[in-house]
Amino acid sequence: MHILVTNDDGIDSPGIYALVHALRGVGKVSVVAPDRQQSAVGHALTVSSPLRATKIRRDGEMFGYAINGTPADCVKIGICALLEEKADLLVSGINHGSNTSKNILYSGTVSAATEGMMMGLPAIAVSLDSLDYRTDCTVAAEYAARIAAQYFDLQIPSDTILNLNVPALAKDQIKGFRLTRQGTSGWEDAYERRKDPMGREYFWLSGHYNSIDNDIDTDEGAMKAGYVSVTPVRYQLTNEDILRTIHLKE
Amino acid sequence: MHILVTNDDGIDSPGIYALVHALRGVGKVSVVAPDRQQSAVGHALTVSSPLRATKIRRDGEMFGYAINGTPADCVKIGICALLEEKADLLVSGINHGSNTSKNILYSGTVSAATEGMMMGLPAIAVSLDSLDYRTDCTVAAEYAARIAAQYFDLQIPSDTILNLNVPALAKDQIKGFRLTRQGTSGWEDAYERRKDPMGREYFWLSGHYNSIDNDIDTDEGAMKAGYVSVTPVRYQLTNEDILRTIHLKE
Repeated sequence: MHILVTNDDGIDSPGIYALVHALRGVGKVSVVAPDRQQSAVGHALTVSSPLRATKIRRDGEMFGYAINGTPADCVKIGICALLEEKADLLVSGINHGSNTSKNILYSGTVSAATEGMMMGLPAIAVSLDSLDYRTDCTVAAEYAARIAAQYFDLQIPSDTILNLNVPALAKDQIKGFRLTRQGTSGWEDAYERRKDPMGREYFWLSGHYNSIDNDIDTDEGAMKAGYVSVTPVRYQLTNEDILRTIHLKE
Repeated sequence: MHILVTNDDGIDSPGIYALVHALRGVGKVSVVAPDRQQSAVGHALTVSSPLRATKIRRDGEMFGYAINGTPADCVKIGICALLEEKADLLVSGINHGSNTSKNILYSGTVSAATEGMMMGLPAIAVSLDSLDYRTDCTVAAEYAARIAAQYFDLQIPSDTILNLNVPALAKDQIKGFRLTRQGTSGWEDAYERRKDPMGREYFWLSGHYNSIDNDIDTDEGAMKAGYVSVTPVRYQLTNEDILRTIHLKE
């Protein structure tokens, strides 16, 4: 099995390093990842400027390509131009910080997996519930590798990715996998209004996260309860229910 | 009715200008839009730098706020910080270029509508099937205004936006509204490999669009056949079907 790995924290992050090491036990691994942190880029593509690919070495060997672009750019350019042989599976992560509930829509980690799916590649997104870069990623990486190893037995449809969220717990405290649905938690947004040194007004996005999903059948509820949440995320966006009931006037 | 208008082509584009004029026949209009073209930004948010809001005048009166951010930023900052009274409806557009089929996932225009929906605001995205900035937008604007005027009679659920795609045709050649589902057309991606003046390699995203949706019950098929396509797009991403059948091994 040939596994393409990317992320949105950048190729230097501890999360991708741990993931690559764990996945090498499952198959051949190629890395194409952003050259720097890409937060909340969603499914952005770079269309108006050129992309560069820089070979990065780690531990004395080729680790992967660093790209001056977004996670979705990395997947596209990896598949279209950089990989010498076809990949069988894409794994995106390990993200520092969970990607559950409404956050899925802003997540570069999840969007990289979505881009892989749109290009015909089965895909997994992996996030760890800690924003601290010092948090150990090896347990999350091991769970990601277990899903990668069994992926083709699970018969996931081609319009669906798997979104993993791993609690930041020691291995013996994790209760195992739990299949979940996307929750409904979200942000209470606010903007702080400030003045710059010239007296001109500017705004910073702030606000706080409202974690309302406690049901262990939701991504966030399961993760908070100590499970590795696995959500099948499908990009079939038509609301078929109302197609039958809505009546437009000309 | 108070309508918040944004777009992804930037506040100077002819599309938003035509849209604002048409919507003034339906209600009070406030504009918060990017200060420049934002192509293929998807659902990106600006989290690592400050946002500025600049008042823009047109035709001798206040037209709206220009923001140094993405379409999703504009919706968030508009609702949270800039609008003096609560908006009832968000309309995003008119985009130059259609947003049908797989392109919905890359579209800043559609993502602005999605952001509105996530903040509790009913939302419509409007795109015109022409990349030429000289194409007349008044017909598309008129159709957008007709949907805005009847929006609250349509009883659209709160997890769903309406995605309009208007053919670039004269008014008397348009066959009227057609309710559609998201199509499956997409890009055949490619990257052009070039050398810069220093001899270093770089890549440009190129490729071509494969328009395979001819069924007039799809967004793209309807638009190509001369209809104003109206797709109810829902962000309920869990694949419920496989939740019941998938079996994870620990």
